[in-house]
Amino acid sequence: MAQNHDATEAFRGRSVVSTADFSKDEILALLDAARAFDRYHDGPVWTPQPPELQGRVLGTLFFEASTRTRLSFESAMLRLGGSVLGFADARISSLSKGESLVDTIKVVEGYCDAIVLRHPREGAARLAAETAHIPVINGGDGSNQHPTQTFLDLYTIREAAGRLDGLKVGFMGDLRYGRTVHSLTEALMHFDVDLKFIGPENLSLPQELREHLAAHGRSGVEVEHLQDAGDLDVLYMTRIQAERFPDPMDYERVRHAYRVDRAALEPFGEKLKILHPLPRVNEVAHDVDDLPGALYFRQSRNGVIVRMALLHLILGGALPGRGDA
Amino acid sequence: MAQNHDATEAFRGRSVVSTADFSKDEILALLDAARAFDRYHDGPVWTPQPPELQGRVLGTLFFEASTRTRLSFESAMLRLGGSVLGFADARISSLSKGESLVDTIKVVEGYCDAIVLRHPREGAARLAAETAHIPVINGGDGSNQHPTQTFLDLYTIREAAGRLDGLKVGFMGDLRYGRTVHSLTEALMHFDVDLKFIGPENLSLPQELREHLAAHGRSGVEVEHLQDAGDLDVLYMTRIQAERFPDPMDYERVRHAYRVDRAALEPFGEKLKILHPLPRVNEVAHDVDDLPGALYFRQSRNGVIVRMALLHLILGGALPGRGDA
Amino acid sequence: MAQNHDATEAFRGRSVVSTADFSKDEILALLDAARAFDRYHDGPVWTPQPPELQGRVLGTLFFEASTRTRLSFESAMLRLGGSVLGFADARISSLSKGESLVDTIKVVEGYCDAIVLRHPREGAARLAAETAHIPVINGGDGSNQHPTQTFLDLYTIREAAGRLDGLKVGFMGDLRYGRTVHSLTEALMHFDVDLKFIGPENLSLPQELREHLAAHGRSGVEVEHLQDAGDLDVLYMTRIQAERFPDPMDYERVRHAYRVDRAALEPFGEKLKILHPLPRVNEVAHDVDDLPGALYFRQSRNGVIVRMALLHLILGGALPGRGDA
Repeated sequence: MAQNHDATEAFRGRSVVSTADFSKDEILALLDAARAFDRYHDGPVWTPQPPELQGRVLGTLFFEASTRTRLSFESAMLRLGGSVLGFADARISSLSKGESLVDTIKVVEGYCDAIVLRHPREGAARLAAETAHIPVINGGDGSNQHPTQTFLDLYTIREAAGRLDGLKVGFMGDLRYGRTVHSLTEALMHFDVDLKFIGPENLSLPQELREHLAAHGRSGVEVEHLQDAGDLDVLYMTRIQAERFPDPMDYERVRHAYRVDRAALEPFGEKLKILHPLPRVNEVAHDVDDLPGALYFRQSRNGVIVRMALLHLILGGALPGRGDA
Repeated sequence: MAQNHDATEAFRGRSVVSTADFSKDEILALLDAARAFDRYHDGPVWTPQPPELQGRVLGTLFFEASTRTRLSFESAMLRLGGSVLGFADARISSLSKGESLVDTIKVVEGYCDAIVLRHPREGAARLAAETAHIPVINGGDGSNQHPTQTFLDLYTIREAAGRLDGLKVGFMGDLRYGRTVHSLTEALMHFDVDLKFIGPENLSLPQELREHLAAHGRSGVEVEHLQDAGDLDVLYMTRIQAERFPDPMDYERVRHAYRVDRAALEPFGEKLKILHPLPRVNEVAHDVDDLPGALYFRQSRNGVIVRMALLHLILGGALPGRGDA
Repeated sequence: MAQNHDATEAFRGRSVVSTADFSKDEILALLDAARAFDRYHDGPVWTPQPPELQGRVLGTLFFEASTRTRLSFESAMLRLGGSVLGFADARISSLSKGESLVDTIKVVEGYCDAIVLRHPREGAARLAAETAHIPVINGGDGSNQHPTQTFLDLYTIREAAGRLDGLKVGFMGDLRYGRTVHSLTEALMHFDVDLKFIGPENLSLPQELREHLAAHGRSGVEVEHLQDAGDLDVLYMTRIQAERFPDPMDYERVRHAYRVDRAALEPFGEKLKILHPLPRVNEVAHDVDDLPGALYFRQSRNGVIVRMALLHLILGGALPGRGDA
């Protein structure tokens, strides 16, 4: 209970710009809180009664379209009894016409109790958080950070594997530009995990992240092919985007090499958990969907649960009683 | 009361893809339930207190813009105390970027309790309903089905005429491509009605629907001009679209021939009910609006009532006490 | 209390098309009511419990994008416990396809309890209000009227200066095309104020407004430069738009001449209140933001409060107890 109290204190009124701003204990407290919203494992998410955020308003400012992230936050806020306003796309907003982001934030904070900001410019969320008198949640700022994606990834792994320590986690696909790969890798450094990175040479880990790993006394194993990755508990897939390859032939070759199907995953056994931030195009074959470890749609649903917990903690509700999960 | 109980059982958790999926009894049960939300004949619709769908979320996925259908569903859900999320137009959604409809549905079902889907592709709603673990309501799939439009058409006729059996119903305009004409014609086969079809030769009934009528022992009378239609209780107008005519001159001629004004409707007397799915362009003259039988705006308002009843039945609320209407 | 009762009666079910439709007493009653929603001067706006507009729906029909106005109305409605539906931009609406505004209004009034209309055509709000059976609030019709902007401007000045009578109010920038300038000028004629107009020659007051002033026995002083305006209690800034100037060089010259910074405002002392309808581009320097009289962001926040009061009065709630502010 003391821990819950601490969590509430640690999150109340706080902005969420980067996973690096949160300690291991704070992250675990958030994941614990999320569990309380996840009462029914195969049913709907839990809706608190009476709705604790009734009358509170979340502003969703999407200067870049991201329908999944937007709808997931909206669902979380609505399920808590709150309301949502904002825009889905800078093209349909007249807010930004020649106006600085700082001015926009100073105006919008008069309309709502918290802001979710998606912006193409790296650092936009930090600037907004420093400007606003209300909490700002980063819903993705360029290639930089998308902390709630990392929180829901951690939540999904922990709920499915029962723990975070002691896991062998492989990342496969675009290791160079995949924002989710970098963010989750950084967050996993809080835990005792073995990291494997599986990707084509021209999309290998950025040197910066390698050094970051080394500085934390970790050394991720980098291999080119899944069969060389050794044993894995978790396989985190990402999409390889055509535009990374000047030569379309190279893309075609790589696209097929970094695609998994049921046969390719068989050696890892039933324990393997497969995650993907979605949307997938063809990098995970449809015959994988029925495997018990195919968690990507559950992972997407968990996004609502983790965001419910986050909004609940930030906007200051009392922590609900622990779930029995 | 037993019937109400049956209706609730028949609809709870069910998808609504095609009117053909519903029996005559089920359709009548829906129309009865709608009456309970239509307390005030010339005032606002009835809002249940306390709001029965509080905390429930409707996802409105409009891969094709249809502002009327979208706002009507949203109004219905909000009046029941529920909430709405989604997108109004595929152009502003990033959901579909290379992602299959099946994947999109598996993601979105994590955000909400029911989905309204509008999609340009015929069969999209059926596929979505087979995929989702939550109810999917077809808000129009290409030229195929738009079942709630048919339900509200039936509701409007029945409330205004006091019955469905024994009516003479004429359809006028685009009989070939008019989705509402086909759908309502099919649904009216449950009832003892006389059908008349009034339209230009090149936009006459599709052979398929003619055979369907014949298979049910009906033979709709087809005429080219309204004055040859004989007596009518109901005239269902539809818009003729310019793009159906390669020669603009043909369109101009037809457009004027299939336009009604107060003078043209006089022979049918005061009993004539005039319906139109809207928007109208010029096929119903403005001098018709003040006729007591001009029901098209009421028909639009009834859309909210029928959708309230449908959401209420599908999402499992107890049936409200019957209205006194 | 009698006055409150009168205000409720005067506003209930009423459309808001033009400030000229409201008497001085009605305007003051609205400003008084707004104060009740403004409990916490530096905190969030006051949310009534229980939410008085629960189950009521506001339709926001924006045929022209205006994100600020839309979000401000949405925030006001949501904070009162109501809901919102509509569209943000005519481009994403299919409502207007060949349909008359009158038909659109007759359809939409079936979906909601009040409409906020933004339309590029002058007179659109009046036409809509005459058509609808529910209240229509003008959210800006072309270069004509935007009455709630004027109400929030009056509220901001009165709260900050403690009164409206006896003030010296200067307007600076585009006096010719600035809709807010004309509207607020007209409304201020109800009060004993000194008006000064500061702007370039080619953007001076329209002759019509000059005659209007004269007809009310007022004569606004017109000067070209701020330093010639004499003493001021309030400076209302507006943006000068490049498209008003055929020659870009003229625009550049004027743009710099009608820009204020902290140094330029020093002569007016600490009492000066600075307003701006926003967005600003560069006509108010950022070093002005920290002055105690820089009210433009507060003015924007007050928009929510005044619109809460207006929706509360129009949709017929009982007036809340007076605030102690």
